[in-house]
Amino acid sequence: MSVKGPSALRIADVAAAVGGSLVGDPETVVSGIAPLDRAGPGDVTFLASARYASMLASSNAGAVLVSPQLADTPGTCRSRIVVDKPHEAMLTLLPLLYTMPDRPFAGVHPSAVVASTAVIAPDACVEAFSVVGAGARIAAGAWIGPFSHVSDGVAVGPGSRLVSHVTLYEGTRIGARTTLHAGTRIGSDGFGYVSGKDGHRKVPHVGRCEIGDDVEMGANCTIDRGSLDATEIGDGCKFDNMVHVGHNCRVGRLCLFTAGTMVAGSTNIGDGVVLAGQVGVAGHVNIGSGAILTARAGVISDVPAGETWGGFPARPHKLAMRGYGALAKLPDFMKRVEQFMKDRRDS
Amino acid sequence: MSVKGPSALRIADVAAAVGGSLVGDPETVVSGIAPLDRAGPGDVTFLASARYASMLASSNAGAVLVSPQLADTPGTCRSRIVVDKPHEAMLTLLPLLYTMPDRPFAGVHPSAVVASTAVIAPDACVEAFSVVGAGARIAAGAWIGPFSHVSDGVAVGPGSRLVSHVTLYEGTRIGARTTLHAGTRIGSDGFGYVSGKDGHRKVPHVGRCEIGDDVEMGANCTIDRGSLDATEIGDGCKFDNMVHVGHNCRVGRLCLFTAGTMVAGSTNIGDGVVLAGQVGVAGHVNIGSGAILTARAGVISDVPAGETWGGFPARPHKLAMRGYGALAKLPDFMKRVEQFMKDRRDS
Amino acid sequence: MSVKGPSALRIADVAAAVGGSLVGDPETVVSGIAPLDRAGPGDVTFLASARYASMLASSNAGAVLVSPQLADTPGTCRSRIVVDKPHEAMLTLLPLLYTMPDRPFAGVHPSAVVASTAVIAPDACVEAFSVVGAGARIAAGAWIGPFSHVSDGVAVGPGSRLVSHVTLYEGTRIGARTTLHAGTRIGSDGFGYVSGKDGHRKVPHVGRCEIGDDVEMGANCTIDRGSLDATEIGDGCKFDNMVHVGHNCRVGRLCLFTAGTMVAGSTNIGDGVVLAGQVGVAGHVNIGSGAILTARAGVISDVPAGETWGGFPARPHKLAMRGYGALAKLPDFMKRVEQFMKDRRDS
Repeated sequence: MSVKGPSALRIADVAAAVGGSLVGDPETVVSGIAPLDRAGPGDVTFLASARYASMLASSNAGAVLVSPQLADTPGTCRSRIVVDKPHEAMLTLLPLLYTMPDRPFAGVHPSAVVASTAVIAPDACVEAFSVVGAGARIAAGAWIGPFSHVSDGVAVGPGSRLVSHVTLYEGTRIGARTTLHAGTRIGSDGFGYVSGKDGHRKVPHVGRCEIGDDVEMGANCTIDRGSLDATEIGDGCKFDNMVHVGHNCRVGRLCLFTAGTMVAGSTNIGDGVVLAGQVGVAGHVNIGSGAILTARAGVISDVPAGETWGGFPARPHKLAMRGYGALAKLPDFMKRVEQFMKDRRDS
Repeated sequence: MSVKGPSALRIADVAAAVGGSLVGDPETVVSGIAPLDRAGPGDVTFLASARYASMLASSNAGAVLVSPQLADTPGTCRSRIVVDKPHEAMLTLLPLLYTMPDRPFAGVHPSAVVASTAVIAPDACVEAFSVVGAGARIAAGAWIGPFSHVSDGVAVGPGSRLVSHVTLYEGTRIGARTTLHAGTRIGSDGFGYVSGKDGHRKVPHVGRCEIGDDVEMGANCTIDRGSLDATEIGDGCKFDNMVHVGHNCRVGRLCLFTAGTMVAGSTNIGDGVVLAGQVGVAGHVNIGSGAILTARAGVISDVPAGETWGGFPARPHKLAMRGYGALAKLPDFMKRVEQFMKDRRDS
Repeated sequence: MSVKGPSALRIADVAAAVGGSLVGDPETVVSGIAPLDRAGPGDVTFLASARYASMLASSNAGAVLVSPQLADTPGTCRSRIVVDKPHEAMLTLLPLLYTMPDRPFAGVHPSAVVASTAVIAPDACVEAFSVVGAGARIAAGAWIGPFSHVSDGVAVGPGSRLVSHVTLYEGTRIGARTTLHAGTRIGSDGFGYVSGKDGHRKVPHVGRCEIGDDVEMGANCTIDRGSLDATEIGDGCKFDNMVHVGHNCRVGRLCLFTAGTMVAGSTNIGDGVVLAGQVGVAGHVNIGSGAILTARAGVISDVPAGETWGGFPARPHKLAMRGYGALAKLPDFMKRVEQFMKDRRDS
């Protein structure tokens, strides 16, 4: 998230760190990572796809991480590191060159308002203007950013982080090593009413939200609490910004939900499901493990495990694509067919 | 919203409270409500739809609320309560078994920043880190949650609640018994510019927002102020999370807007209108009372009162569904017709 | 944004101020601006489009700003001002009749938490409960509203405003005269993971966000930081509420993004591009300067400069409209063609 300013490394040390083989000058010094078109002599860049190979020739990078397939791509970098998976090598390299964000202090900022019955681990950090309610528990290494609202009875697991302006409604449980970005709301009441002559009567929501371990949610997401029991988000899920999940949903492990995706209430989603950008899922449906919904898909029925679906109403992606293709040809097709029928009728 | 821990009730007392007839053991004690598949011996569950009838047999619930039509559904619960509308009975039962959330105290938290000209009813609650501006009025029984920004000249009606991190821009008026969930913004400037050679010049927004009585809005909604007069949301409207309403809109009474619905500026919406998930409505259109827009509908023209429309561009729902059905058949249809025409030409 | 109460003006002075010619009583006094149907004798209204001409006859406005083409529209206002561009005249008139919002004070509110290494211009305003991090710089005339989170190393340019509850992540740069509405998040981590057997490993985001001059963003927007370098939003861009821009995007000058628009990562957008409501743009595509994407467009490929595209997948708007038109006729067309083929086969 943050950057405290890069360190500097000999490229030979970089090669050793990522387990790659060095070609060229071992003494090149790099202090940053940059994309091909913006890198300078003090940067290492990377080339992992043939699509961008032509950009290497004009790159000013001091060094490049390159996959074996592209090792001989023309370019003028002083040093090359040939490595199987340049993107994974980047993950190793980033913490060596950049300082990763960490808790600014251990303890509770004097401005925070903490209930006397809250339990906060000594090495946790509670930043300025945070509210921690009665019976809340903040585990070891947790980082509660400014303007956090940790309501009564909430549990935040070890090493988890609320970045800023996060709301955790009453009873929410957050697992370990989970990050919630600014403005995300966990445990708001679900959209449930009993409608009658006297208007829409609210269904009180007495359930809660349970978020697993190693989850990351982007900015301004909303996850509603269950009406009676829990809305559940499984371990390892990663949500982009502005994702919404309705009450009573159960989302499995390792799902990826891209920005603007919205899931209505009481829907069950398996493990490893991918919902691409602006996908919508109706309530009370089942999406099987490993299913992929392509961007803008609108799901109104069950989706079998492992299948790729798209379009609205969502159906198998290939069929949806065939439909769009046919639609593009439809106006001319209609004109030709109308003419054909007219000719036959006239003849 | 919150739960302070359930009480316990004899099932005979539950039957009396909901006006149902008891079958089985009158001494069963329940302390919670849970769905069929998660209820235990200390829970009451409910069965209101034949769709879920098969789940009763394997439910471990101590008691079940069941509609007369489903009264004889096989199952092993110790006690049954037969009642006309199990969902409405639930609304009666929930406050008996659960403590509903209420203002934690009356008065103003010492950390709040309140203008000297603000008027706050003695029994209202203003929680930590709230800002209340000049001339603002907070009525009796209102509950201003932490991190509320109540700007100058705002009026919050009796019994209304700002849950957390809510922003009310200058001059906003909130009616009685209205709840705004975390991160909702009322009265932000509308999207209005006069574009010319020197860029987009902002139209100053001197109007305001007026939200009626008994409204509920979910988390992270945005309602823009009027450019000259008011954007109005009528009594009894219920909005899900991430709903957006543009400047100058007038929304009638008892409307339901589901998550992700967005209404552009200067649109008029009647009473009792339902906008399902991710609906979009263009600016300057009229939607008649009682109209229903199905999920993902994109409205670019007026919608008559009482009609159900869908699709994009939105049209009567049945036509939209026929269109989707035809589109699904289109690729094969085209192939057959092309072959037919070829055959006839060849012959 | 806000209004402190209108002043009062002689209509002859209004005419002089907007450079229009006065017809009727020069002594009419107006103290507000209102739409045709809501204006009273103390208001000036405006008529710029023939579409609303019939409303002038029944308007109770004291005066009207009217374009030369509509100067003779029937109506009973005491005074008329004929002016070339009534909407632009309104921009001149609004600050004369209404007090525009301004910083409530110069300096730092005593409740704010400001790092000792932050540099704040003497005439800047930092409101209650704001956090300003190490090395942050707040320029002259900037207005940091309540609950602002200005992280370490952020720079806010002269005259810019954070309305309320805004988060600026580490290293964000905001230009001059830029306004960010309530709940907007700048610089959250992008949605980037390397997926493998052990789940989705986060790509640390060491880039930042750079927002230009004269930008306005609505409420609850999210702009992600770059993974390695900067996500850039150019001068003069205006975003509506709930707009999302992904990591590494470069958006040119003077673009207009309407509510609910979402742009995935690494996409390049030229100058003066218009993305209408609920548009989605895939990652790694290019949208040329001056392109317009109509409401709900879903862009999955490059869009040439100056073209208007729409639909999903987006294509030239005219083709998309022809497609929707054909789709509406498709069910009947299919029926007729099937009958035709049957008849010919039978014959």
